[in-house]
Parts: sequence; structure tokens; C-alpha cells
Amino acid sequence: MAIRVAINGYGTIGKRVANAIAAQDDMTVAGVTKTGPSFGCELAVRRGFPLYCTSDEPGHITAFSAGGYDCAGGLSDLLGAADVVVDCSPGKMGGENLARYHAAGLKAIFQGGEPHSLTGLSYSSSANHEANLGADATRVVSCNTTGLSRTLVPLYDHCGSLKVECTLVRRAADPGDSRKGPINAIKPVLKVPSHHGPDLMTVKPEIEINSLAVAVPTTIMHVHSIIADLPKGHGLTTESVIEMWKETPRVIVMHGGDSRLTTTAEVMEMARDIGRKWGDLHEIFVWEDGAKLVGDRLYYFQAIHQESDVVPENVDAIRALMGTEPDWRASVARTDAAITACYGTG
Amino acid sequence: MAIRVAINGYGTIGKRVANAIAAQDDMTVAGVTKTGPSFGCELAVRRGFPLYCTSDEPGHITAFSAGGYDCAGGLSDLLGAADVVVDCSPGKMGGENLARYHAAGLKAIFQGGEPHSLTGLSYSSSANHEANLGADATRVVSCNTTGLSRTLVPLYDHCGSLKVECTLVRRAADPGDSRKGPINAIKPVLKVPSHHGPDLMTVKPEIEINSLAVAVPTTIMHVHSIIADLPKGHGLTTESVIEMWKETPRVIVMHGGDSRLTTTAEVMEMARDIGRKWGDLHEIFVWEDGAKLVGDRLYYFQAIHQESDVVPENVDAIRALMGTEPDWRASVARTDAAITACYGTG
Amino acid sequence: MAIRVAINGYGTIGKRVANAIAAQDDMTVAGVTKTGPSFGCELAVRRGFPLYCTSDEPGHITAFSAGGYDCAGGLSDLLGAADVVVDCSPGKMGGENLARYHAAGLKAIFQGGEPHSLTGLSYSSSANHEANLGADATRVVSCNTTGLSRTLVPLYDHCGSLKVECTLVRRAADPGDSRKGPINAIKPVLKVPSHHGPDLMTVKPEIEINSLAVAVPTTIMHVHSIIADLPKGHGLTTESVIEMWKETPRVIVMHGGDSRLTTTAEVMEMARDIGRKWGDLHEIFVWEDGAKLVGDRLYYFQAIHQESDVVPENVDAIRALMGTEPDWRASVARTDAAITACYGTG
Amino acid sequence: MAIRVAINGYGTIGKRVANAIAAQDDMTVAGVTKTGPSFGCELAVRRGFPLYCTSDEPGHITAFSAGGYDCAGGLSDLLGAADVVVDCSPGKMGGENLARYHAAGLKAIFQGGEPHSLTGLSYSSSANHEANLGADATRVVSCNTTGLSRTLVPLYDHCGSLKVECTLVRRAADPGDSRKGPINAIKPVLKVPSHHGPDLMTVKPEIEINSLAVAVPTTIMHVHSIIADLPKGHGLTTESVIEMWKETPRVIVMHGGDSRLTTTAEVMEMARDIGRKWGDLHEIFVWEDGAKLVGDRLYYFQAIHQESDVVPENVDAIRALMGTEPDWRASVARTDAAITACYGTG
Repeated sequence: MAIRVAINGYGTIGKRVANAIAAQDDMTVAGVTKTGPSFGCELAVRRGFPLYCTSDEPGHITAFSAGGYDCAGGLSDLLGAADVVVDCSPGKMGGENLARYHAAGLKAIFQGGEPHSLTGLSYSSSANHEANLGADATRVVSCNTTGLSRTLVPLYDHCGSLKVECTLVRRAADPGDSRKGPINAIKPVLKVPSHHGPDLMTVKPEIEINSLAVAVPTTIMHVHSIIADLPKGHGLTTESVIEMWKETPRVIVMHGGDSRLTTTAEVMEMARDIGRKWGDLHEIFVWEDGAKLVGDRLYYFQAIHQESDVVPENVDAIRALMGTEPDWRASVARTDAAITACYGTG
Repeated sequence: MAIRVAINGYGTIGKRVANAIAAQDDMTVAGVTKTGPSFGCELAVRRGFPLYCTSDEPGHITAFSAGGYDCAGGLSDLLGAADVVVDCSPGKMGGENLARYHAAGLKAIFQGGEPHSLTGLSYSSSANHEANLGADATRVVSCNTTGLSRTLVPLYDHCGSLKVECTLVRRAADPGDSRKGPINAIKPVLKVPSHHGPDLMTVKPEIEINSLAVAVPTTIMHVHSIIADLPKGHGLTTESVIEMWKETPRVIVMHGGDSRLTTTAEVMEMARDIGRKWGDLHEIFVWEDGAKLVGDRLYYFQAIHQESDVVPENVDAIRALMGTEPDWRASVARTDAAITACYGTG
Repeated sequence: MAIRVAINGYGTIGKRVANAIAAQDDMTVAGVTKTGPSFGCELAVRRGFPLYCTSDEPGHITAFSAGGYDCAGGLSDLLGAADVVVDCSPGKMGGENLARYHAAGLKAIFQGGEPHSLTGLSYSSSANHEANLGADATRVVSCNTTGLSRTLVPLYDHCGSLKVECTLVRRAADPGDSRKGPINAIKPVLKVPSHHGPDLMTVKPEIEINSLAVAVPTTIMHVHSIIADLPKGHGLTTESVIEMWKETPRVIVMHGGDSRLTTTAEVMEMARDIGRKWGDLHEIFVWEDGAKLVGDRLYYFQAIHQESDVVPENVDAIRALMGTEPDWRASVARTDAAITACYGTG
Repeated sequence: MAIRVAINGYGTIGKRVANAIAAQDDMTVAGVTKTGPSFGCELAVRRGFPLYCTSDEPGHITAFSAGGYDCAGGLSDLLGAADVVVDCSPGKMGGENLARYHAAGLKAIFQGGEPHSLTGLSYSSSANHEANLGADATRVVSCNTTGLSRTLVPLYDHCGSLKVECTLVRRAADPGDSRKGPINAIKPVLKVPSHHGPDLMTVKPEIEINSLAVAVPTTIMHVHSIIADLPKGHGLTTESVIEMWKETPRVIVMHGGDSRLTTTAEVMEMARDIGRKWGDLHEIFVWEDGAKLVGDRLYYFQAIHQESDVVPENVDAIRALMGTEPDWRASVARTDAAITACYGTG
């Protein structure tokens, strides 16, 4: 029987996770929540997802009808109809929500905006799927951490140790957000080292890592400039690292010069061509000609689609918590095949 | 039997027109052309479109094999397998190409980058479908002219005369183009009045119109600020104009304040939500709360998705030239239903 | 004896007005106010402007000493040492402030962020200097209105009547503001017609004018696209209009193609070259090759440096209120010569 | 007697170097060159700099008169009236030009766009002034290398060894350039490691350094994210490093949080406030709260005004080549005092 998944919060991440779950044959969307009637409700209705209210207050629930939408009930009703909940709430409501999920007897998955301490357990498919098997609650790490995990974990697995420094050049606002700036400036994150890199250690404590971050006036992707120190005797070459990544799930390696995909603009255009909904790119993009091993020090660039790279990880995390698929590679293959069949031939 | 359509040029417009044609049940993609092996070939292969070379030279054709792509022949071969050709060539190669199409006995459709004088006939679905019935060659007007046509032709049809001034605030580069600027400037088109507005008269000569244009540092949409002088006794109100547009095909009217779609960023995000490939929005977006009739002068704003609004017009233009659908409204309904069924529920 | 001018508020406009006043030989800066110790105090100290606190509260005043700045007292103290006050407060504190200025027996000048109704009188040097002679309080109109006044008033004065429509393409944030967006969008001002154009009628009621406005992702200038309908028998040509503007104070007319100043980026660079402080351009920039008279309808573009074009108007407004210079052209010439001598050879 | 300096090329760098030289009392501008009549000539005339033609061809020289400018002759004439030449040519004309300068018996200074191999000697005031004393020709390193030199050389001088990795987040176009993009993308420099960091070793070979670079859609400054590994026993703390930089010439250290200068937008606004021509900031800006020493690894951010930081270095380089000031600190103090007296109280 399919796993019934509640999506609490139907915004940038929630709407994508709902679609990805709907594409799987071992799980189903029990419902999604909105705070009130809005265009997001329209989307849920078109997709046939049962619509619930974030709140249990009758007044809030009936407001949906006034806006022309059928509301199936409050969050408690949704939790009663589900086996697991994916929390995609915007704010930092994790603590309050976790108590409710526990009370309802549900397993729960949070997003990277919440602290690791909320659940004491974090998740990234390639890093620690096994450690999450059967757990009550976990946190899928952020888009940046997920991106670092994708390329660094296989390196670590080969080398047995890894010391990393990276600079995260971040988009300052998402494409649908017109309020945030800057229009013409670079904004360093003055807390150094930044929290971004070390967050990787919540899913792979063996990797030593620090980071610096700057925000820049673009909306479409983050770019990481990464320096990884490999241990002596690693036996790798630039070419063999590239080969390793080409065989890594959810990593795309392309030669920027040959493909003319030399900036995030062209990479995102390629993603639109592939045809997933929202023009998403779940994979991390690595420039083949931007990677070089100099002695034991590896330099490379990767681009991260901040809106979508964590989406398939949420699907895998459901299988981990429910204990239905102990092998991370099997889960990843199943997740990706289903998404691709529905939403584009990545 | 389905109309066999050749697409000469498979870039920003060509790839979209090919997909839109493939979604129709009365036409089929005979093939698409590329100048040489590239990522665009990959797209064509994935979609199952026969791949041809823009040139007939054997050396150019065999280069595709070297790049790993099957090439079915040169442009002449493609023309021999088609009933009509849609020219989506990048440069101003219209004259040369038209001669080839004629020599091959094919009807031909050009894009708005070519001058009206090339064919002596232009096309916009709502403006002059009937005048294009059975013609040998036509030109689908540009994204801006198509946008003006969508909202002004129904106004003209109601009023019987119309004088228009507009300022076109244009995106300076497409999303996939990282080379063009400006990064931080406004660039007026110093030829005044600009050619954009008067181009509408190639499909609706009765509308008097002039325009001014500026380019601004954004990639996602054009915005038109429009002033239309209605004749005395027009009998319209702001509300009845809004109603008229709501009933007009390929126009979306939404209240910016209520929907929170107050900039082109949020409008494009809505388009991504709707789910058409590339996040396209074929419709013109009009802000309900940005339109006002003051005396006989109508003020309004509309947003144009420059990459896609002409795509369904190309499909309709094929039916016009082939003479298979004399009623423009019937063609539009058929085109849009097919696109929506395949690529999202707009 | 020099007119003693208090500057209440020492931010984007206040710091510029203070410098412009200090450059004149018939007026002197009695002092400037800040809300507390900050980098702006440093600027005032370097320039030798007496530093006062916006508030009269002793605790606020002594806070300056803690920050290392000598504070000469509260606003009341400053008002007691001045003949006229220029209000450059950020918020909409006009009503409250006006009462204080009146109580202190001072004449007062407000900025365009305040409504005309505050003073019942507005000011633009070329439009209505005479009407402001000896007045108790006035409002220098906004940067956009000042820009419209500069080019439209001489046209009106020649023609005797004028009907104008314009689209204001506005910078979305100032150069030193990193918080505001959008990064990649166009934002129409959905109130149509916008308030910007009609504000011109507060200084020149005879000109009929409406406007539409959009904000775009740039920081450096506004661009106006303007359509002016001249009355029959105006006797003007494109060339004679250009000549008229070349003889108009605070208007720069240049040929974009010949000078390669084709966008606001190059215009602002020219301003930096001229050498006024902050790279300011007090003049309105009109593209000679972007102006054209078609029948009785004049089309043109102009660029407005939003941070500085009202600065010399504030100086002239002081002379108007104090009644020391009844001739607007004489005041303008005196103001500009003094600024140029100190801060660049514009 | 004052050193007579020829400036060959009067663009972004040339116009600034000319002004800086004119501010010194031990040197004078012998003349500047332009390729033909343009707005740049206007600037030279206003400043009283003799105007020469880049070419010696009579036709080119007389073209200036046609444009309304007095031209004092060709490049050869200028070289004949000078003791040293600063080459600010746009293109890579270094080889050709060097031969001409040598033939004229002049010492020559090139900019960082030329390769080190042209002269076999490079220059940065704090790094190797002494090594340049009396040399025939040198190259002032680029804006990025100059910036790295300013903060890393004192660190090296203290520690005796230094290993550095940095990511250069670069502005994609200068403020006056409206043609270059990207508008909405991040562009990694795919050659890794990039040439930028190692260029520091042309002036300070003892510092081991590598770099990665990305270009972003901003016009106003570069930001460097830097990781420096200090040797054991360095004896430094975060605070003592900050103190060291506060005492270093041409480095400004400010607390971003306290001063609210948290992005390059606010830093450049501070520079405009200071009042140097063009709103320049010759100093490197280091965020005090963005620097942290973790063990022996120092993390910090700095911002570079790409248009102007090399300007005072050119003045110092003249004294080095002419042998008139053997002490770099004395030259720097003299240069900066003169610039500040003329152009703002930085």
C-alpha cells in the first residue's frame, strides 16, 4: 500500500515535493496545507491534491470556501490521514510543529531552514540514508549542503579523508521574489567562517569543511568555488575525479567550453530545455573544464539550483524513515526514474 | 492527413514552435534543422524530431555523425518532405530562404525579425487570419506587436477607430543569454517614434499607433505602458474593457494587488506554476488594477513573455496558409486546447 | 549679511543641499541635524558644518559625545540660529515639523516627498519662482517633477498650451541602498495615471499632464519617455525645440550617437568626469537624437539624476522665500556658477 | 625640477592617473593622448592637460582641429617633452609601445593588462618599491593583485611565510559600460586555478597563492574571499591582524555591522561621501567583522574599487623608476597627502 504523505506548507519547496511524491508509485499525496485562499490553492486543486488549512480554527477553514476553494479540514485532519509528514513551513516553526506531528503519531521530515538540533538527525541521500532508516524525524539539509554532499561524499568515500574550503556565491533572491535586493552590489556574509559548509558535517561528520559566503544580484543559481585537500596516496587524477562524478547520481558534468554552458544563465536554459516542471534542475552541475587537481589539492566549481535540488532527497528521506528501501542507490534510482518519466528526460 | 511542417532553425522560437506543432492533431513536424552538432540536436533527438542540416553541403551533413547525431539530410531534403515551412532562422536570411522555399513549392511562414516587405503580408491570429487564408507566404509579427494586437484589436473592433501611443519597456537579454548588458542602466531606443508600434499596422492598418522603447536590465518580460484614445460614443467603461479582455483568447487579466502578482517576477513564477514547458506564458498578462479609462483615454499596462507569445500564432498561421481553418477563433481554440493538454493547464 | 540656513536632515538630499548652500556667497549653513552619531556626522564635521540633534531631548544630544562628535544642541537650538530651514527629513514628518518651524518664526522649504497640501505652495525655479517670493513655506517638487518642469515649461512658455503624456521608467533603488529589489523584474506602478506627472501642475497648472510609471532594476537614473501635444500654429521644428533646450538652464542636450552616451550608464560616467561631488548631475539630460516633432506631437527622452537634480532648486527657493532675488534666471545663474566653481566645471 | 610625465591613453585609468599626478608637487603632466576628438578631449582641455594624438600621422592629428580641439602633436612629440611615460593604452599594445618608449629614451610604466614578461618587472608600492628603483620599465599590477598585495604583504612581512587561497568575485562590467553582461547569471572563470592570485608572485614571490574567480552582475567593486594559512608560531590574533591593517597605508578597516556598510553599495556610497573625483576609493576596504583567525587559518573579505586602486601605485612607481624616493612609505605618504588635499579628505 502506498505511503500516505502530508505536505505541511505548499510554497517554493512544498509544491515541488508534492509533485515529486505524486510521480512515485510507492507513495501518495494525502494533502497539502495553505494558510488561506490564494493562487497556491488553485495549483493544488488543478493537481488534484486535497487541500487543508494550516490551522485547525474553523474560521480559517471556512475562509477557503469564501475564496472559492474546497478545504478538507485543518492540519489535524490531514495528519490523521497520513503516515508521514514533510514540513515545508516557511518560518522557523519547527519546534511547535514537531510536537504536533509526534502527538499525531507521525514520522516527520523537516527542511534545511530548521536547525539540526531540532531532530538531532539530518539527511542527504548519498551521505547517510542508512543512518536514517526507521527514524522518527529527520531534516533534509539545505540546498547548499545538499550540493556539497553530492560531490564531496564520493570523494571522501574514495579517499577516506577530506579537508575542504569553499566560497558560496549565492543568488540574493528567488526568481519569483521582487522585493529583495541588492540590485547592484556584492554582500559578504560577515560571519566567518559561514554556517553553510560546516552543516555538511551533520550528514558526513568525517569531512572537515569551512566556508565563506557572498550574496550577489542574480536570481537563478548558487555557484560554489571549492578547494578540497585530498590525503596523500589518493590515487586520483583530474580525469578520474570527473569520471567518478559522471557516475554519481544527481550530478551532471559538462564541458563549459564545448557545450557553451559557461554561466548559470546557460545552465538554467539547458534545464528549461530538459522539460521538468518549473524548469527545475535537481542535479548539481559541475563544469568539467573548471575542475583541476593540482598536487593533492582539487579545485572545482559547481552550480546549484536552489529551488529544487533538495526535492528528490525529500522523497528518499520518506523511504528511509518508513524503512521501505534500505539501499540509498536503489531509492535514488527509483525517485529519479519516476520524476523523469513524468516531468522531463533529464 | 496531417500537414507536414518543416522547422528551419531550432533555437529559442524554433524549438517552441516544433513542440506546439507536435501537440496538434492536424499537423506533424517533418523535421528541424541545425547548423551543426550541439545540445539543440540532443533536444530534437529526445523529442523524436527528424534532424536535418541547415546546409546542403555534404561536409556539413556528415559533421553531425561525428558529433554523434543522425542527420537525415540537408535543408533541401527536409523541404522535399514537407508541405509548409516555418522559418525560425536567427539572422536576416529571409530573402535568400524565401527563394528556396518557393523553388521547393512550399508555403512559408517567417518571424517578426524579418521585414513586412519580405512577404508583403503579416499575420496575427485575432487581427487578420482571414486575409492570410491560402496565401503563399506570411510573417508572424514580433512578440511586441503580437502583444499589442491581442489587446488593441478587440478594442478597435468594438470602437471602430483607435489612436494609440505606447512605451515599450523591454528586457535587454533573454534568460539564456549571458553576454548582453546593460547590468545597471536604462537604454532608450533613440529612433523615435520606434518601429515597434507602427508594425501593428501591418496586420491592422486601421489602428493609428506610435511607440517609444527603452531596454532595461531584466531578462524575463517586456512591459508595455499604453495610452489608447477611443472615439466619442464608445460606450465603454474601465470595467467593460476588463470584461472584454477577459473574454479575449490569449489574454490573462488578473488583479495585481489581490493576487500579489505585482511585477514580472511574480507573473513569470505564476507561469512556471502553470506548467508549460520552459515556464512559458503564451498569453499577454494585463493588470486589472493597472487599467483605467479617464474620459475617452484608456491607460493600461501589459506584460509580454518575449520567448513564447508568438508560438501559438505560428500554429494558427499554418492553418491560414493551408486554408484548413477559415475561422480564427476556431483555430485559436484548437491550438490552445492541444498545447494545454500536453504542457500544462493554463 | 548672509542668509543663515538650517538643514534638518543630513541624508541623500540634505548632505547635497548643505554643500550647495556652502558654495554660495549670499547664504551660509547654520547647521545640520542627525538623529544620532553615525558616519554622516563625520561628513558634517569634515565640512565644518555645526552638528545638531534632530531631537531636543538631552539624552539624545549627549549620545553624540559618546560617539565622539560635538553636538551643538537640539533642533530648537539650530532653528534659533537660522533665518530659514530646509527640511530634508526622511519620513513624512512634514506636518509636525512645519508647526515647529512656524513657532520658531522661520520660513521653511520642504521636499517633494511631502504633499503639496502641506504648504499649499510648491516650487520649481523655471516654473514659478515669482509666485514664491516672500512666501512663508514652500515645497520643492520631486526629482521627476523637477525634470519635467525643466523641459516642459519653456515649451509651454513658447506655445501657450501643452498636453503631455509620459512614462517614467524609474530606478528601483539608490546606489547606496542594497536592500531594495527587484533584481530581475519590471514593476508597474498600478495606480494609473500615476501621481508623478500631475504633480507638475502644482508649479505650472496650465500644463495638462498625465503619467504612467514603472520601476526597473537599476540604481542610477530615471528615464522619461514623453509625448507632448503642441497647439496648432506653434511654429516649432525638431531643431528649434533642441535649440530652445540648449538655451535652457540646467538642461544638457547631447547627441547620443555622436557622443556615445547612449544609456544612463554612459551619461552618469560623463557626470563623474565633470567632477561634481558624488558624481552628481544637477542638469536634466536630453538625447538630441531621441527627440522628434511629428506633426504637432513631440516625442523625446530625458534622463534624471534622482539624487541631485532638485539640489540647486533648493538654493533658488531660499532666495525666493527670503525675497532677495526676484528674477529666477538671475538666481539660477548665481546658484550654478557657485556650484560649478566649487565642484566641477559642468 | 618636476618630473615630466606623459600619459599615453586617457581612458578609465589614464584620466585618473593624470589627475593624481597633477596633484603632486614633484611631477607634472606633460600631456595626454587620445586617438581622435571625443568627450575625453573635453576633459583634458578643462584640466589644462596638453592634448596629443596617439598616432603621429598628420591626418589623425589634424582631425582634432576639425573636432574643435587643439592638438599639440603626435605621440612622438609628447615623448620628446617627457621624462617618463605611463602607458594606459586599452589593448595589448605593450610590445610595440615599449619599443617606441625605449627609442625615445624614456622610462615606462605599464598597467596590469600587460603580461609580466613584457618588462620582466612588476610593481606594487608595499611589495617591491625598492626592487624597482632606477629600473627602465615596470608594470603596475592589476587592481586585484594590488588589492591582494595591500593586505597580504604586511601579513607575510610579519610571519615570514604565507600560503593563500582566494576566490575573486568580480564585477562583470565597469559603471560606464552598458554593453557587457550578464544581467542575471554567475560566470565562473573556467581556467582553474585562475591567473589572478599567482600574479601576486610577480611582486612578492615568497607568498604562495592560488585563486578562483567568478564574474557577477554588478558594476561597482570586486570582493575577495581569502583564506591565508599562517606558519606555526605567528603570534597573531584576529585583533592584532586588524590592528596591523589599520596601520597599513591604503587599507580601510571598518566594522560592517556598526557602520552599516555591509555591502559594496554602501562602501561605494561612503567613497562618494569622502569626495574624491569619480567617487573613487583608492584604498582596499576590509570588513573588521568579516575577518577571523581560526587556529592558523585566517579568513577575511575585502572589497576593491577596480577603477582606482592602482592609481596611487602609478604615482609611486614613477618615483621608483626615477629614483627620487627610495623609501616606499615616504612615497605613499606623499602621494596620498597630495591626492587627499585636492580631491577629498579620505
